[in-house]
Amino acid sequence: MSRTLSDDHSSWFTPDELTSLRHRLPFLYVDIVPVRVDGDGVITRIATLLRTPREGPIQRALVSGRVMYHERLRDAIARHIDKDLGPMALPRLPASIVPFTVAEYFPTPGITPYHDPRQHAVSLAYIVPVDGDCQPSQDALDIAWYTPEEIIDPAVISEVVDGHGALIRTALATTGRLI
Amino acid sequence: MSRTLSDDHSSWFTPDELTSLRHRLPFLYVDIVPVRVDGDGVITRIATLLRTPREGPIQRALVSGRVMYHERLRDAIARHIDKDLGPMALPRLPASIVPFTVAEYFPTPGITPYHDPRQHAVSLAYIVPVDGDCQPSQDALDIAWYTPEEIIDPAVISEVVDGHGALIRTALATTGRLI
Amino acid sequence: MSRTLSDDHSSWFTPDELTSLRHRLPFLYVDIVPVRVDGDGVITRIATLLRTPREGPIQRALVSGRVMYHERLRDAIARHIDKDLGPMALPRLPASIVPFTVAEYFPTPGITPYHDPRQHAVSLAYIVPVDGDCQPSQDALDIAWYTPEEIIDPAVISEVVDGHGALIRTALATTGRLI
Amino acid sequence: MSRTLSDDHSSWFTPDELTSLRHRLPFLYVDIVPVRVDGDGVITRIATLLRTPREGPIQRALVSGRVMYHERLRDAIARHIDKDLGPMALPRLPASIVPFTVAEYFPTPGITPYHDPRQHAVSLAYIVPVDGDCQPSQDALDIAWYTPEEIIDPAVISEVVDGHGALIRTALATTGRLI
Repeated sequence: MSRTLSDDHSSWFTPDELTSLRHRLPFLYVDIVPVRVDGDGVITRIATLLRTPREGPIQRALVSGRVMYHERLRDAIARHIDKDLGPMALPRLPASIVPFTVAEYFPTPGITPYHDPRQHAVSLAYIVPVDGDCQPSQDALDIAWYTPEEIIDPAVISEVVDGHGALIRTALATTGRLI
Repeated sequence: MSRTLSDDHSSWFTPDELTSLRHRLPFLYVDIVPVRVDGDGVITRIATLLRTPREGPIQRALVSGRVMYHERLRDAIARHIDKDLGPMALPRLPASIVPFTVAEYFPTPGITPYHDPRQHAVSLAYIVPVDGDCQPSQDALDIAWYTPEEIIDPAVISEVVDGHGALIRTALATTGRLI
Repeated sequence: MSRTLSDDHSSWFTPDELTSLRHRLPFLYVDIVPVRVDGDGVITRIATLLRTPREGPIQRALVSGRVMYHERLRDAIARHIDKDLGPMALPRLPASIVPFTVAEYFPTPGITPYHDPRQHAVSLAYIVPVDGDCQPSQDALDIAWYTPEEIIDPAVISEVVDGHGALIRTALATTGRLI
Repeated sequence: MSRTLSDDHSSWFTPDELTSLRHRLPFLYVDIVPVRVDGDGVITRIATLLRTPREGPIQRALVSGRVMYHERLRDAIARHIDKDLGPMALPRLPASIVPFTVAEYFPTPGITPYHDPRQHAVSLAYIVPVDGDCQPSQDALDIAWYTPEEIIDPAVISEVVDGHGALIRTALATTGRLI
């Protein structure tokens, strides 16, 4: 039901309106660390989305996106996983919507470990185990899975976009992996 | 520095703009449960702000308010405490900005325990011990302090505005009081 | 591997030894709130184990038990779920072992909401979704599933053993249900 | 009252009894990361206790110790801070006793990031701001305060005893510092 309402076009913005608003109020996001877990619940793999920007080297990113008007956080999490990992990912959404961390992205660098030149965004971050088959969609080239040991390797983590490396390290620390 | 930027008038909205935006994207809020704690850290009192609306009976509310453009969550928490409890409240801001709960206020009742007819707001909720002298300011008549036992009395909790009663009960449950 | 070590008989105690130790140091427990969740991760049902004590009325309890020597918390959680809900319960163990609450059971009533006349026990409490078929084993008569609304009904919650009612209410509050 | 009971000698153990028990059941500990925070609640300094063992190089450690029979976690935290930082430390005990992480120390290395050759210990870890004057007592030579940047310097963190380095990094990650 809430999805129907969030599809109501009156809540949509033109690109110009969005650009203007991004410098006038904080935007609400969800960031998702998609993981595989073993039978004991221990994280064994982390997924990153591989992208080839028009210029510059390849980039890796987590699942991430805006919360829409009249959309529950749970619905935003499910929608962005569906968009980025495909409809067969079978995510296990958390029983509690308290995030494991809150990432404050500022257009000014250095205020927090998170930086976004386009906007001020506040993102609630969740670790979401996915059990199903993940397929890249939209603008991702591929989905790459790394063990916790592999993903913090400088060669890998340096390809991760601004802030998402900090989210990965925080997710691993809060779950007792690689501390 | 971030406060200076959030005072930049270009990020302000006219009342009409705000009213329109409240139905087009979720607004980010902080809700604060101001408490007194004893030497062991145990909550002994909870503060509510007493208000007399133009119509209807008196209302009690927590400290609450919007996060502004380019404002850190910590600065928003401090600003709203300062606004509602006065400059001598001496709040102890949390070392972690992970909230104890996330309240999703929808204009449509029944989606979550939180309802706000004006808007879709997502509020990060914090328990903040205050050590100093609290004085009502702005639109509050008085600040009333209750023990956990007193505040959940039906005669008191029924005067608390929509959603804030749920926040108080959740705050007491997550700290092991009155469960 | 850790399970093998915890089965090493040198770490076992005679009943007399255990009774004596229970009054000399705190025992470490895990308490588990077994739940069914829907596709959005929202809790829809909570399981209680039905018991008929030798004297007195029937009792309802959560999954609960001691952590053994050289046993990981994850292994203790899995072992007690296996013991109380059977081997087909298919629990989803949490990615993080930070508990949603810590229950301190004292032999003296009134120090905390948790009381255990036999011992001082400190229990780490977890919400664990179970997807599979649950069968009572050992000393339980039956497993009864309740909606959040049903389980806090005074007629039901009054049958729940000391402390487990408080755990159920805390679990519902921390997940945003029935607050 | 609980402190009086925990001083009851019947709950004390001889050194031989303790050594034997440490290999038969998990011992419950609290680990405390003592910090200075600024007016915004942000961690500015972390305290470590400096020790000179009979053999080997100097070691740095956090505040840490066992939970006694009939002792509340809050009382154990306060007692160990008092013992290690002196009676003027003025700690701000947390409103919630949910730890920021749980450290499982095993006598066998490699099961978790925490290792204790003497015993199986499960430790609930807390970040505790201290506002007062800290004085080394008992077996500590000195108390050294480090900024988050300084403490994770390899030259410093390598002097920190087993497991406490992992706790410091986890504490910094969960509070959004140095990730």
